[in-house]
Amino acid sequence: MMLTIEIMAVISGAIFGVLLARRKQMDFVGVFSVAFMTSFGGGTLRDLLLDRHPLFWIQYAWYPVVVFAVAAIASLIPRIPAGIERFLYLPDALGLGLFTIVGTEIAINESTTPFVAVLFGVMTGTFGGVIGDIACNEVPTLFRPATPLYATCAFIGGWTLIGCKWLNVPDTAAFGSAATIVVVTRLTALRFNLCLRAIGSWPE
Amino acid sequence: MMLTIEIMAVISGAIFGVLLARRKQMDFVGVFSVAFMTSFGGGTLRDLLLDRHPLFWIQYAWYPVVVFAVAAIASLIPRIPAGIERFLYLPDALGLGLFTIVGTEIAINESTTPFVAVLFGVMTGTFGGVIGDIACNEVPTLFRPATPLYATCAFIGGWTLIGCKWLNVPDTAAFGSAATIVVVTRLTALRFNLCLRAIGSWPE
Amino acid sequence: MMLTIEIMAVISGAIFGVLLARRKQMDFVGVFSVAFMTSFGGGTLRDLLLDRHPLFWIQYAWYPVVVFAVAAIASLIPRIPAGIERFLYLPDALGLGLFTIVGTEIAINESTTPFVAVLFGVMTGTFGGVIGDIACNEVPTLFRPATPLYATCAFIGGWTLIGCKWLNVPDTAAFGSAATIVVVTRLTALRFNLCLRAIGSWPE
Repeated sequence: MMLTIEIMAVISGAIFGVLLARRKQMDFVGVFSVAFMTSFGGGTLRDLLLDRHPLFWIQYAWYPVVVFAVAAIASLIPRIPAGIERFLYLPDALGLGLFTIVGTEIAINESTTPFVAVLFGVMTGTFGGVIGDIACNEVPTLFRPATPLYATCAFIGGWTLIGCKWLNVPDTAAFGSAATIVVVTRLTALRFNLCLRAIGSWPE
Repeated sequence: MMLTIEIMAVISGAIFGVLLARRKQMDFVGVFSVAFMTSFGGGTLRDLLLDRHPLFWIQYAWYPVVVFAVAAIASLIPRIPAGIERFLYLPDALGLGLFTIVGTEIAINESTTPFVAVLFGVMTGTFGGVIGDIACNEVPTLFRPATPLYATCAFIGGWTLIGCKWLNVPDTAAFGSAATIVVVTRLTALRFNLCLRAIGSWPE
Repeated sequence: MMLTIEIMAVISGAIFGVLLARRKQMDFVGVFSVAFMTSFGGGTLRDLLLDRHPLFWIQYAWYPVVVFAVAAIASLIPRIPAGIERFLYLPDALGLGLFTIVGTEIAINESTTPFVAVLFGVMTGTFGGVIGDIACNEVPTLFRPATPLYATCAFIGGWTLIGCKWLNVPDTAAFGSAATIVVVTRLTALRFNLCLRAIGSWPE
């Protein structure tokens, strides 16, 4: 089941990248590069910062092939149907949950402090999009006040995992509940358009 | 004393990041992320390029907590007082001096050539701001001709350190004089608005 | 001969960086930094992702000196002659050929799969410009549909090298023919203004 979620999350990450790149009128080189960054950017940054090698997409080398295929198929479609994002919200939220937990767990095993481990979890789940946005010459969506809670959900989920570990909850239950909290808060934020705007962002 | 300078420099780096992010109307996620980049970006890039692990902010894990606190406090303030930058110039200049010397010294110990070591010193002192600017979708301030000498001060200070080493000046004296030169040239450049505009930048 | 091509390619990469930075009215700090990124960015990213240390420009430390000299000389010239790009196309194409083959070969030796190795070849040859463009706050030229084939030439050349290896072609012949194919396709694309626009980029 985790593999299914992972593949779905990689594909939906790649599609977000494709949408981003096409909005910028890029050609296939740009579409593939940006899709690659949105899909693998967060995990790659985590592994570089933690010095974990070989990188996951070098080790599991069918990952880049999947992204290439998504970019190639998308490039054959003259007009990507409007509103396709709506179908991506669920796989994306599942991927956010999965990658946040994986990233936090990896950082803990590299013996970082809990706070830093949660930051790595958030980074794994969210920074692919940031890198893709930067490459597309955009202010990262993740940093904008009008974006429904995203990093915040990962942050809460990461601390849930840490809390479960403190309470000696068995691993499977800990992973499951932390990931569920990420997914539920993310879907709730999307449904009710909850943003961090009220907290911490002021007109200037 | 070095620890005091370091903390002050990290805090002032974080405040610069906060100002940058708020000018772009970012929410707390953006404010914290950009503050993190401006504070730790230069040193992180240095350590990645030199393959030094664990990274300093993973090892000294209260660093990210400090930046988080700065970002959180700043986010509770609806209107950051204008002209606050003026109070940051001194801690920032001290931080530039400290980090340039630390960066140059680290690179020398990794047995780079003097020129490359100085480049690493400059990078440590200045590239946090560059990374923060890029994440905020701005042309880096460091690269703009209207910016008072900044990288140049670090460059001069780095060569001072190298020169002291050639002359067998004892370490403490070498560090002290190199850092002093960075701080003095930086404050002078700010006071008299000295830029590299005259040298090397031409209207086109 | 390879050394000559390499030096010429580094210099032409640096000049492209200088042109980019000056179009953005940067001062010497910006000109040198961007020239450094366009020259060494692709290879540095490759080595970071593959965990190869020390980096080539730390080991062969006269490389950064060459880029510094190019940036310094360029900064003394008030007006860079228009159309200078035309003289850079040949050394740049030769460099693209050389770096693509070198990057692919290095990745193969780190036992990546052929597809990933070709991606590393393309990255080595082309991502310096992408990083330089991002630092200059531009949508990367490489990703734009109006750019004559560039990454595509490297991609074809990388697969040529892989194909030669499958056919047990001796190394020198394999390197030579793969590099030649990169150079010839690149010069052809420039001559006839061949773009990927027709494939995969649609008005939206």
